[in-house]
Formats: sequence, structure tokens, C-alpha cells
Amino acid sequence: MFMHNKRLMYTVRVSEPNPGLASMMLEQFGGADGELAAAMRYFTQALGEEDAGRKDLLMDIATEELSHLEVIGSIVAMLNRGAKAQLAEAQLEENELYLTMNQGGASHISNILYGGVPLTNSVGLPWRAEYIDSRGDPTCDLRSNIAAESRAKIVYERLIAITDDPGIKDALSFLMTREIAHQKSFEKALYAIEDNFPTGKLPGMPAFTDKFMNSSQGPGDTEGSWNTGPQWERIDDYDDQMAVDGGDGTASVNLGASDLAAVEKLALRTKSMPDEDPVTGVDLGAGPGAGATTAIRH
Amino acid sequence: MFMHNKRLMYTVRVSEPNPGLASMMLEQFGGADGELAAAMRYFTQALGEEDAGRKDLLMDIATEELSHLEVIGSIVAMLNRGAKAQLAEAQLEENELYLTMNQGGASHISNILYGGVPLTNSVGLPWRAEYIDSRGDPTCDLRSNIAAESRAKIVYERLIAITDDPGIKDALSFLMTREIAHQKSFEKALYAIEDNFPTGKLPGMPAFTDKFMNSSQGPGDTEGSWNTGPQWERIDDYDDQMAVDGGDGTASVNLGASDLAAVEKLALRTKSMPDEDPVTGVDLGAGPGAGATTAIRH
Amino acid sequence: MFMHNKRLMYTVRVSEPNPGLASMMLEQFGGADGELAAAMRYFTQALGEEDAGRKDLLMDIATEELSHLEVIGSIVAMLNRGAKAQLAEAQLEENELYLTMNQGGASHISNILYGGVPLTNSVGLPWRAEYIDSRGDPTCDLRSNIAAESRAKIVYERLIAITDDPGIKDALSFLMTREIAHQKSFEKALYAIEDNFPTGKLPGMPAFTDKFMNSSQGPGDTEGSWNTGPQWERIDDYDDQMAVDGGDGTASVNLGASDLAAVEKLALRTKSMPDEDPVTGVDLGAGPGAGATTAIRH
Amino acid sequence: MFMHNKRLMYTVRVSEPNPGLASMMLEQFGGADGELAAAMRYFTQALGEEDAGRKDLLMDIATEELSHLEVIGSIVAMLNRGAKAQLAEAQLEENELYLTMNQGGASHISNILYGGVPLTNSVGLPWRAEYIDSRGDPTCDLRSNIAAESRAKIVYERLIAITDDPGIKDALSFLMTREIAHQKSFEKALYAIEDNFPTGKLPGMPAFTDKFMNSSQGPGDTEGSWNTGPQWERIDDYDDQMAVDGGDGTASVNLGASDLAAVEKLALRTKSMPDEDPVTGVDLGAGPGAGATTAIRH
Amino acid sequence: MFMHNKRLMYTVRVSEPNPGLASMMLEQFGGADGELAAAMRYFTQALGEEDAGRKDLLMDIATEELSHLEVIGSIVAMLNRGAKAQLAEAQLEENELYLTMNQGGASHISNILYGGVPLTNSVGLPWRAEYIDSRGDPTCDLRSNIAAESRAKIVYERLIAITDDPGIKDALSFLMTREIAHQKSFEKALYAIEDNFPTGKLPGMPAFTDKFMNSSQGPGDTEGSWNTGPQWERIDDYDDQMAVDGGDGTASVNLGASDLAAVEKLALRTKSMPDEDPVTGVDLGAGPGAGATTAIRH
Amino acid sequence: MFMHNKRLMYTVRVSEPNPGLASMMLEQFGGADGELAAAMRYFTQALGEEDAGRKDLLMDIATEELSHLEVIGSIVAMLNRGAKAQLAEAQLEENELYLTMNQGGASHISNILYGGVPLTNSVGLPWRAEYIDSRGDPTCDLRSNIAAESRAKIVYERLIAITDDPGIKDALSFLMTREIAHQKSFEKALYAIEDNFPTGKLPGMPAFTDKFMNSSQGPGDTEGSWNTGPQWERIDDYDDQMAVDGGDGTASVNLGASDLAAVEKLALRTKSMPDEDPVTGVDLGAGPGAGATTAIRH
Repeated sequence: MFMHNKRLMYTVRVSEPNPGLASMMLEQFGGADGELAAAMRYFTQALGEEDAGRKDLLMDIATEELSHLEVIGSIVAMLNRGAKAQLAEAQLEENELYLTMNQGGASHISNILYGGVPLTNSVGLPWRAEYIDSRGDPTCDLRSNIAAESRAKIVYERLIAITDDPGIKDALSFLMTREIAHQKSFEKALYAIEDNFPTGKLPGMPAFTDKFMNSSQGPGDTEGSWNTGPQWERIDDYDDQMAVDGGDGTASVNLGASDLAAVEKLALRTKSMPDEDPVTGVDLGAGPGAGATTAIRH
Repeated sequence: MFMHNKRLMYTVRVSEPNPGLASMMLEQFGGADGELAAAMRYFTQALGEEDAGRKDLLMDIATEELSHLEVIGSIVAMLNRGAKAQLAEAQLEENELYLTMNQGGASHISNILYGGVPLTNSVGLPWRAEYIDSRGDPTCDLRSNIAAESRAKIVYERLIAITDDPGIKDALSFLMTREIAHQKSFEKALYAIEDNFPTGKLPGMPAFTDKFMNSSQGPGDTEGSWNTGPQWERIDDYDDQMAVDGGDGTASVNLGASDLAAVEKLALRTKSMPDEDPVTGVDLGAGPGAGATTAIRH
Repeated sequence: MFMHNKRLMYTVRVSEPNPGLASMMLEQFGGADGELAAAMRYFTQALGEEDAGRKDLLMDIATEELSHLEVIGSIVAMLNRGAKAQLAEAQLEENELYLTMNQGGASHISNILYGGVPLTNSVGLPWRAEYIDSRGDPTCDLRSNIAAESRAKIVYERLIAITDDPGIKDALSFLMTREIAHQKSFEKALYAIEDNFPTGKLPGMPAFTDKFMNSSQGPGDTEGSWNTGPQWERIDDYDDQMAVDGGDGTASVNLGASDLAAVEKLALRTKSMPDEDPVTGVDLGAGPGAGATTAIRH
Repeated sequence: MFMHNKRLMYTVRVSEPNPGLASMMLEQFGGADGELAAAMRYFTQALGEEDAGRKDLLMDIATEELSHLEVIGSIVAMLNRGAKAQLAEAQLEENELYLTMNQGGASHISNILYGGVPLTNSVGLPWRAEYIDSRGDPTCDLRSNIAAESRAKIVYERLIAITDDPGIKDALSFLMTREIAHQKSFEKALYAIEDNFPTGKLPGMPAFTDKFMNSSQGPGDTEGSWNTGPQWERIDDYDDQMAVDGGDGTASVNLGASDLAAVEKLALRTKSMPDEDPVTGVDLGAGPGAGATTAIRH
Repeated sequence: MFMHNKRLMYTVRVSEPNPGLASMMLEQFGGADGELAAAMRYFTQALGEEDAGRKDLLMDIATEELSHLEVIGSIVAMLNRGAKAQLAEAQLEENELYLTMNQGGASHISNILYGGVPLTNSVGLPWRAEYIDSRGDPTCDLRSNIAAESRAKIVYERLIAITDDPGIKDALSFLMTREIAHQKSFEKALYAIEDNFPTGKLPGMPAFTDKFMNSSQGPGDTEGSWNTGPQWERIDDYDDQMAVDGGDGTASVNLGASDLAAVEKLALRTKSMPDEDPVTGVDLGAGPGAGATTAIRH
Repeated sequence: MFMHNKRLMYTVRVSEPNPGLASMMLEQFGGADGELAAAMRYFTQALGEEDAGRKDLLMDIATEELSHLEVIGSIVAMLNRGAKAQLAEAQLEENELYLTMNQGGASHISNILYGGVPLTNSVGLPWRAEYIDSRGDPTCDLRSNIAAESRAKIVYERLIAITDDPGIKDALSFLMTREIAHQKSFEKALYAIEDNFPTGKLPGMPAFTDKFMNSSQGPGDTEGSWNTGPQWERIDDYDDQMAVDGGDGTASVNLGASDLAAVEKLALRTKSMPDEDPVTGVDLGAGPGAGATTAIRH
């Protein structure tokens, strides 16, 4: 069960209202790597987890992320506080209000539609659970969590770089730091599973686990430990990358008589006549006097 | 520049049409961890990469994933081949066609709307780039790629578990194996960056990198290397988790005179009257004779 | 700041696993009127609220809704617990697993992709913040909250009607009941604002607040207190519904010389020639022998 | 059946083109509380309604909202008329055109992609039916309609506040006023249902309809008619909010032997080893010389 | 201005309720090629059109499509009428109701969430304006309209094929026929523009309008009027398809000193060390005893 | 199988970084008519195509579009190259960085979230497969492809109009020209199908293929070859447009006894009382002193 105390996890002191900056901050409120995504990612994993230790860890961090959501949301609320009230009370001239609303990002929709604290990212896209990649397998999920924490860290770093408000910089630094700490926890939990690679139970096919397909060639082709060396057999010849099973590289299905008849009927009805050169809509439509069309005429 | 050869990377032999199974396979065609997501993830990273080695690696694997997309898409096409033709030619009775279309997952929309090979997941949700989490920072992106490969591996494993068609099982096993190989490559590339943790340039705040907030307590609270031990200072008392900066845990912003006046006006206009007990719509609406409402009456 | 205790708000006792029923339950977990939508709706309102009483109320209920989310999510986890493990361990034959995955709704994607507890609705659509309609104006938001609670109540009622598992029925009844209680609270809070209609500050134009436009006529046209009586002037004549400002009912804009020249040039370049009867792609494409096309030939 | 007359419901006189303002206006054309949302909300309700009076009312207002959609869309078309033509004819210098396209909101995409009148909101998000919350129950739907009208009213009020074009202000005021009138109609229709609370048929559980859970505590905890007084029993102690059914607050499911074996196998295979302190990727990745990482080293 | 008459454009006679079939019909109500998409496509084009003839045509057909939306929506309402009432009144046993809700497609969500007439497609995806491709250029838009009508025709044909209810078949045939008629109108309007190809004003680059790039080679490479013959110069050699401008095929940008310094710093900080073979997370994670991992060990 | 060469199809020379322009270019990278949409449109069609000639054509152009995606993506990468590095290295002052990020469109999210090359359109909306309208019927799909090429052409033309960077203009002109060439190929392929209108197999109902419904009347009603002449019977009278089947224009369904009883019970329970004038929430809420409400008082 969740409980709440009105004291924030980190005190928020904002120097002055700034709807444009508020809009940038939304990236970590309702954005892809934001705090709601983090909270829901770990919360959904916790609900289905069978291991008591991981379940506890996931619920701990899910809960902390909700507290972070409150901190970043409070920053947004403070940055929009003036503009929201000015618009609600229509205290400024129309032109002033118009300019106040349009300060970059989604600052206009933040106040005109949402009235201050929208659950969107910085371009106004409402949060969507596509951001969550919980798969119910701990060795997948912990890797996804590690990656997610590293992404959240870098987005905070970028937000810190664009604001000089000391109170905001301070609170963002705290939130960024906690992503570092969380990554550490998830790494511990991943490697606390004895056999964590590859994910799941099924082994790979031995013939294909160590091959590196050099699919992109030409100037800039490079060697490194990721495609060359004792762990790799590198395939450079395109022909050796095709139909690696030794078959002919086609796709086929066994069709019963009824299906086969239908496929043949469909193929006949819609077959193309490659030997004819039909008049087309383009021929009808390329007007005689237009310079634009001479280029495509013969 | 991309080139294409009509031979598949892996030969596809499907035993018989099966629209319901086709629908499940869509998870790896147009789904969150599917091959298009993989290809676009690496391709967008490659375009912005400054390091020649990683750029090459990313483009190699992006290209191979497109070839995988073709393999899984061919499986879908073969599984839907009969149903698509039967519907197009209306060869079966209406009831038979209706049943053919409704075999689970999104099999109905696959043929009625899309005509066979939709770029959707297994419930018919069209693919969306929210699935891609490229951030343009290599230590983030490689971690995201590692996680993505591990997710794709597990989804293939699950699809292998639900089909006994040997040709499909075989092709899926190949695709699954390649995810294992790709994860290995991305791990090499991550650790080939000398200083890869934490992501980015900014260090964390020393006071908060090693603290573990025990946010979820009660029965089931557990210790492990992720929250206890030499690397951690664990905070159990909720009060010590609040306002960790030493402030009062409130949010505030300095408002200029004009903003302040507007805020006060807004607050006054919409203030609640806590001391009165107003008649409400509920009081108007709870009908006298309904048993449903006695529970809420006084 | 949020805190968590591992005891649920309401004990969850599920009789037996049932992935199909789990999928239905998702409607209140990751669906439009589900508990996350409720929690985020009130939480975003609370962050921007200036009135202490409403801010407290909103945060109280937001927090409780998170606890509800945990209850309904636990029901889903229990209903999917067996299927998830069977798939992970591939303990059943392929055909059995296939059938286990396909039990209606989005039960297949719940386990194949998400591994048990997806943040989606019952057709597998990931949750999206479009479900939240917070507008930052209390007389709007409280009406939206009242409506949202009434919707959540009816969806719970429908879910109760389709399951005979007593433990689930019981927990759903608790959750449904709380929506009734919350609606009561929000009604009190709405009418505790002295002047709550119309929303906002601007009055309507007196000429148009009391008119009822009878836009849909013909058999079934009806009178009621919503369109007739002392509060209404009903307009039946379509002509009296047009250009009610007394103008000519056109749309126009004053264009400067440069814009006007561009518009005229555009109009000239793309003007249609209504007097000619051109040959079209249809004329090219309607094949001579097809019965299908005789209907459109002349 | 729908019919159309080319005269608008309200004459539209725009002073001068302004793509930035056009973009703001889109909020009520293709936005969440816009006229299409209103029209489709009432139209879908009307189709399924069994009561003749409400069916008539819903179709009346749905039709009027389509006429409103035409008015607001005409405002957008007029505001974009110059920019659209300038771009189509490439009459201005590139830099001038670039600036013309970039005037705030989604003004660039409105003309570059959509060519003038996009069915999006003010940040360019295409309209989505998630905005519609019709539930097919009249006491829900009418409450949702009341709330929707109040939201539309406030958004019009905000748009009126940011423009000084008298023709636009006038047309927006008309549209805003009609939302007030519609709210009145829907309120009448709601209270014309004798027993309209709670929604649906099922009564609440008497033990929980009148309890108020004080979930958010600490500084700012407040009393009001929404949580205190004769209609409420207020629960302040967190422990009394947990497991209110009297159980232990856990979640459980009865598993058959096969499911139980699978769950145990899964748990064993993925169990964490809490007593060890494994080397992790973080340990591998924190480079020796980076100041960033000293903070997390021990 | 829109008006409405309660008589439908086509009488709807449904033989018996069928929620599963209702769900299929949604494809043309709230689906990608459905009637709302059609109506909004033409309506948005009409608002911005400068040519009186096309504006009239577009508004005519937009209005008729709304009437079609009403017809198909009425079919859905009739097919769901029984199930909706059974659920609302909870008249059937739980198991019967569960089965009634789960009859394929999105039949469950149609009634449990939406209560009968959802604005979704057949898998329950809410309608989205991404389906509309109006671009504000008549030679584009008319081609898009022609294509859209042909798509709507085929989807109706497929729906007709799966139902044997004569009343539904009849109404669908009417709706399908009108798509044929509309395609004819749009073709006339397209070719009534004298110079309609290529779209817009700019001519193509003469060197590249007639070249055909044979990008996909290998078994199945084919010739036809679309790539061979007097109108085409066919390029088979991949090398001749690269850098066709005669350059070196790289991408570059001129960077100022500050940007250059930042790029170099970034490159240095994140450079990979291709000559080393680092220990990775995979090496840490591949447990000693797992058969799954032997395949990837060396 | 796909292969890749690092040489671009067209050399990209960008004069200087410009994040705002980069953002506009995204329209053709991750936008509705962009190159990924084109590639995936043709690729999904190719997979299901039965005709060898069209299958080859579709795969040729799909592959070329991927190469175009790389060209436009490289333009975006070059335009964002400086800003991305400046942000990553935090080389500029905060205010300078803030301004660098906010240069129009979605330039801020491009770098703050995505780090340079996002798969979004110009307002930051991630790409979605709703943009693809493949239907698996060649006469539909080819018409959709023709329309899509014409749309892509016009968007390129508009982008060319807003930039004066000669290298970008040149590359965009190449890409635009190829859309013209592709449209020509698809037109040939369409008319190479002998009987291509109407789409599919079913003929229209003769009574309704040639009627034109004049649904929109009033000032501006116009005649043209699209609604008048030998191919059309034009219906002007609204009454003749209703119930054109000769029925009464109602919707009905035969209900069994159980369904009928449920419907009647539902209707009775929720019937409106049209003869009473109930007190409503509006009456409760319109405060006595507010000028805003006098307009709606009686």
C-alpha cells in the first residue's frame, strides 16, 4: 500500500517563473526516460516477481521514483505558476499573454490546454506505456533497467547544462545522482543471478552464435573486439551471408487444395502484363505547357 | 546505400497456413522488440556516431536486422497466404471465412484490413518509434542495445515454445541465436570505451550515490548486495528520506509583483469553503427507491 | 514523498489462474478509466493546485488510487501466474502452450511479450496520458473527476458481472465502492467553491446561452427539460441556425498584397476546368470483360 | 442522415493571417476538448441510446458541434491562408519562408506537411479517439459530457485571452457560450433520470462508502466537507488503511500441480544470491581517471 | 453548417445480435479506411480549398461520409444491442456473460469499456487522425482520395464476404458502391486540373527522372513496363547507384571552431579501443553449469 | 537479404549546423510521407505479393527508399552535429545552450532526448505504422503508392523552398525527383493489370454507382464533370437522399426473448422524465454575485 507525506524528497527552490524551461523539464516528468516511466517499469516488474529479494528491490525503487516524479513535477509547477495565473485571470494584455504562452517547447499547450502540469514530454506528447519494456524475465528486465537508468542520467545531465537557476540545478543533480545509485543496485541484482546470459533457458544454435556478419562494407569498414578476434568468425562475403541454413533462401508454405486454388485464382486475376506499355494517369496528367513536366516527357 | 538480394538470409519452410500463429509471429515483425525496432535503433545511432568503429558495427547489425525482418515477415506471409487468398476470392462460405479470419491475436485485422503482412504487433497495434530509445550517447545506447537484444531473445524463445512447425522453429532459432551474438558484440563495444560509467560527463553528488532508500517496508523487506554491504548506506527511517537536502521539503518560486497579484486573485476566486457542507449533485441524484443508493445515504 | 508497505490495501485471493480473465481485468489496470489514470489525474492536479484543502484532497485520493493499482495489478499477476511460468519453463507441449496463451482479450501478448503484468488495457493498448484530462481549473477538474469516478464505477460493475471467482468479486467490489466514495468527495469539493458555474471567469454572450438549436429533426424529435421550457428558446428553423451573428456566414481574411498575389497564383495554377469531361484513370482501368465494371460503364 | 449548407453557423472575419495564432486555435479543432471530440462523443452515445429523448438531444448537439468544427476550422484556414499560398508558390525568399513557417506551436507542420488545416492539436499531435470517453451508460456519459463542456469552455476562454483580433474574439465567444448552453442541457438530462447515483445498478459495500482514507499526511493536512463531517468516517492511521478486509494483505492464487511445478522451477532458475557481492558491469566500466566516477568508488 | 435528419441514408435490418461480427464492422466505423477517416479527410481539404468547384465536391462527399458513418455505426449498435443490455442488467450468469463478451476481435472491450459503439477499429485501437493524409495540394489530395476510396471499397468487399446476414450484406453493398462512385468523382476532379503531374510546381532533375535503380537483384529479377522500355534507363550495377551526383558519397558539414572543438572533445571522450578485448557483462554472466551458455563459450 | 555500402546514394554537403532546419527535415525522415514510411509501405507489400513482376518492383523501390532514408538522415545528423556535441560536452554557457536547443520545431527534443537523429516528424511525434496503408490488394496498393509518392514530392518541394543551403537543396532535389520516377513506375504497374477498376472482385450495385448526392448546398453549389453530365444522375432533394433503399430509414435488430427483456429493463431503469424540470448541478453552482452567471440565470 502506498502512503504519502507532503514533504518532498528534495526541497524545490525556483528563482523565477519560466514556461519555456518548464517545458524542457517535462522530458523527465512525462517523457520517455522520465520518472513515471521509471516508477511504472519497476512497479509492473515487482508485481510479477517470484524472488523476494528482487521484488523488494523493485518496489523500493518504484516508490522512490514516484517521489522523484513529485520533485520534478513541482519544478514544472513552480516554473509555470505565474503564467498559469496570468492566463486564468487574463491580467495581461492579449499580446503579452500570447508571448507568455509561446516560450518554446510545449509551453503554450502546457498552460492553454493543461493548465500547468501536463503528463507529457517536452514536445507535448502525452506519456505512453510504450516507454515501459518490462518482459517478466529478470535477466532481461534488469538489463532494461540498467539501460533505462543510464538514459535517465544523461537526460538529467543535459537539462542541468541548459539552466543556470541554482535551485533547479541542485534538485536536478540530486535526481541525476539517484539514477547512478539505482543503476548500481540493478547491476548487483543482475549479477546476483548466477547464470544470467543468455537470457531465458534456450541455448543458441552453436553454428551461429559466434559468426559476425559484415553486412555494411565499403569505406569505413573497421575491425574491433566486437567483430574480430578469438570469439568471432567474421563473414565478409555477401553470398555466404545468404541462406546460411544451406537451403535456397526462398519462403514457401504447403497449401491444401482449396487454398492453392484460391491463390492461383488470385494470382491470375491480378497478374501484371509486363510486355505491354500501358497509358497511365501520368500520361493523362502531364500538361503540355508546364516546364515542370518536360523533364519527365519523352 | 542499401542493396537487396532476393535470397533470404535463412530459408523459410512453413508446414501449413495458420493465421492465428501468424498473428503471434507479428510480435517480432512489428512489435516492441521486433526486427524493425532493432534495425531502426541501430541505424539511427549509426547516423550520428562519431567513432568509426562503432559506426561500422551499428550499420552492420542494423543491416542484418533488416534481413531478419524479411525472414520473420516471410513467415507471416506464408502463414497467412491461404487465408488471404480465400478472402480475396471469397471462395469459402461466409461462415467458414468468418472463422478463418478469427483464429486469435489480430488474425482478423491482418487479413481484413491489411491483407496479410501488417506492420503491427500481435494485438494489431501499429509499430511506433516510441520503441526506439537511441539517445546519441554511446554508453547509454550500447546499454540499451544490450537490453534490447536480451528482450528480443526471450520473445523468440517464447514463440519457439508455442509452435511445433519444425521449419518455423528452425528459422526462429536462427533469429534468436543472432540476438545472442549481437548482444556479445554490443557488450564488447561498451567495454571498449574506457570510462563508461556513469554515463556522460557529470559526476553524481557524493552524498547521494551510495545511499539506498528503503522506500517499501513491511513483510518481505529483504537484504541483498543491491541495498546492503560496503557499497551502501541504507536509510530505513522515512523521515530521513524526506527533504534530504536539509530544507523544509516544500516547493516555491519567487514571483514578481504582477504574477503574485494574479496568483492571489486566482486563489481567491477559486477558494474552497471547508466549513460548509454543501448540497451536491450526488444529493440530487441518489433516487429514493433504489437499493443501490441506500448504502451511501445518511 | 511516497512510501510503501508490502501489505495490500485489500487482500487478494484468486481461485485459479485464468489468463483470459486477467486480460479483462487489465481494463482497470492500464485502461482508460483504470487506477493509473485516476492516480495521475489527481496527482497532476494536486501539483498545481493553489487551494490547500483541494491540494490535500487530491493528493489523498491520488495516493489511494496507487494502492488500488497495486490491488488490481496483483489480481492480474495471480491470474497469469501459472501461464507465465509454464511459458518461461516451456513445461507444456507446444499446442498446449499455444492454447494457454490464447484465451481471449490480449492474453497472448500479456505473457508472450510482457511476461505477466502489462500496463495496457484489455486489448493490449499501452496506457496513454491522453486518458487524463486535468486542465488546471478546479471547477473543470472536479467535474472531470466526478465523471471519471462514475466511469470507473461502471467498468468495475461490468467486470464483477463476468466473473464468479469470489475472491476477485470481493476485491473488485471494494475497489468499485471506493469510486463511489471518491465521487462524493469530489462533489463536495466542487460545491465548496461558491461560484462554480460556468467554469472560469468569462460570462457567455447573453444572446446565445439559452437558445437550443434543434439540429437533428425528423422522426423521433422530442421535447424535454433539456431543450424546452422557461430556460430555453428553441430554434427549429435551420435558416435561423445559420449565421446567427447576422452576417453572411462566410469566412474571410484580409490579405496583404503579397499574400493576395500568392493566393491568386495558387488558385490559377490549380483551378479545375468544370466544363470539360476528361478521360480519367478509371476510364483506363475498367477492363472490358469484367462483370464488376459493367455497372460503372456508359 | 447529415446535410450541409455552405453558410457557417457564425460568420468568420479574420483581420490578418497569423500562422502562430492558427496553431493555437487548433486546440479546439483537433485537440482533446475540441469540437471533433465533442461531436464524436455525443454521436457515438446517440447511436447506442435506448431513450428517445436523450437520443434526440445527443444527436442535436453532435450535429451542432460539427457546425462548430467548421467555424473553428474556418478560422484556422483563414489564419493560414497567406502562408500556405506563399509556400505553395515559393513567392518569398527562402529565409522569409522559413520564418513564416516558424511562428510558434505547430505552425511549421501545419503548412509544410498538412498544407493548412490539420486535424491536430496545438503541438501537432493528430486527433485520437482516446479523447472520447463514451461508456454507453447514461449516468456516466452525461457526467462526462458535463465535464467535457466545462473543459471546452475554459479552453475557449484561454484562447480569447491571447488574441486581440475582434472577429476571432467574437466567433470564439459564440463557441464558448454554446458550451455553457450545452452543459445546461446535459445537466437537465442527467437529473431527469430519477436515480442517477451511483452509476449503474450495483450498490457499494456499506463498510467502505463513507470512509475517507487520509493517505497523504504531514504539513498541509486539511479538513473539509469532502473528508470530515457527518457523511464521513476518516481513517488517519496508515495501519488501519491496510488490508481493510481483515486479511493479511497478501496476494495469492491456488495453483494446480503442473503450474506449481513450473513456478517453482522458474523461481529456482532465476533466484538471486543475496549473500554474495558480485562484480558487475559498473565495476568493469568505471574508468580509473575520471572524476565523474570517483564519487561512486569505494 | 450541418443539419441532421433521423432517417438513415440506408435502412439497417440486422437479423440477430452478434458482438463478434460487430467488432469486425468497426473496421469501417473507427478504422483506418472507415467512414470517419473519409469524412474528415474531405472536410479538412474543403476548408482550405481555393477552387469553388472542388470545395463544393469535397464538402458534398464529406457530408455523405458522415451519413455513412451513421449507417455503419447503426449496424454496430444493433449487433451489440443484446450484449450491452445483458451486461448492464447482469441478467445472465457470470460465465454466460463472460462468453458473450468474448466473441472475437475487440468484442469484449466494445461492451465492457465502451458500452456498445466505440470509435475504434476491429482490434480496439481508437481512431487516430494519422489516418488522414490531406496535404492541401489538390493534385496530391485527389490522388490520396482516389486511393482511399479504393481501399475502403476492398475492406467493404471483405466484410461482405464474411457475413451471411442479408440485411447487413445489403447495407454494406450500398456503402461499398458509394466508394466506387466517389472514386469516379475524384478522378474527374483530378484530371480536370490541366497540369496535374508532377504534383506542385518544381520540375524534377532531368538526370534522375527516368532512371530505374535495380536495387533488389538475384533470383526473381524481372522486367516490365515499370522499369524497362523507352521511358527508362535501367541501372543494374550497384556501384552506379552510389553517389550518383559524382561525389564521394560521404556526409559532411562545415563546423565553426567552437563546434569543431566540442565534436573533437566528444569523439575523444567516447572513443572505442578496438585493439583490446575487454571483459564484458556477458563474460560475468554466463554461468558455468548452464547448457544454454556452452554454445557461446570459448 | 539486405546489404549495405557506406557510400551514400547522394553526397551530402551541409554548409553549417542548424538545429531548427534539422527539425524541419525530420518530416521526411520520421514523418508521415517520409522515407521510412515509403520503404515499409513497399516492403510489406512485396512480402505478400504473388506476382513476380510487382514483387520485384516493390522490393527494388523499398530498398532504394532505405537508401533515401540514409541520405535525409545524414542531412539531419550534419545539421545537428554541432549542437549535439556542444550539449554533450557542456561547452557553452547555460543560456547559450538553452538557445541552441530552442531553434524551432522539435529541435530541443532532438538533442536533449534523442541526441541528434530522432525517428520523429518535425514536431517530435515518433514515427508510427499508421502511416502505412498497404492492403494486400494490388489495385488498391498501387493507387496508395501513387498517392504517397505525390505527397512525398510536395513535401520535398516545400522543404526546398525554405532553405538556401545549396548542398541541402541539391540533395533534396534528387530525393524529390526520385519520387516522380517512382510514381511513374507505380502507374505503369497499375495499368499493367488489365482490369483494375473497381478494386477487388465485387461489382457495385447498379442503382448507386452513378448517382451524385448533392449533400452540401447553399451559396457556392457548383457543377462540374465530377457531379454532372452523362455519367451522373444528380440528386438534389435531401428527401431523395434518405433511405434510398426504399425502407423507413430506421435501424433495427431482431432480439431473442432474453435480450429483449434485458433491453427493456435497461430502458426502464434509465429512462428520462421529460416532463419535469429538475434542479441541477448548474443551479447549485451558479453563484449569486458573479457577473459571469447572470447570463444564464432566469
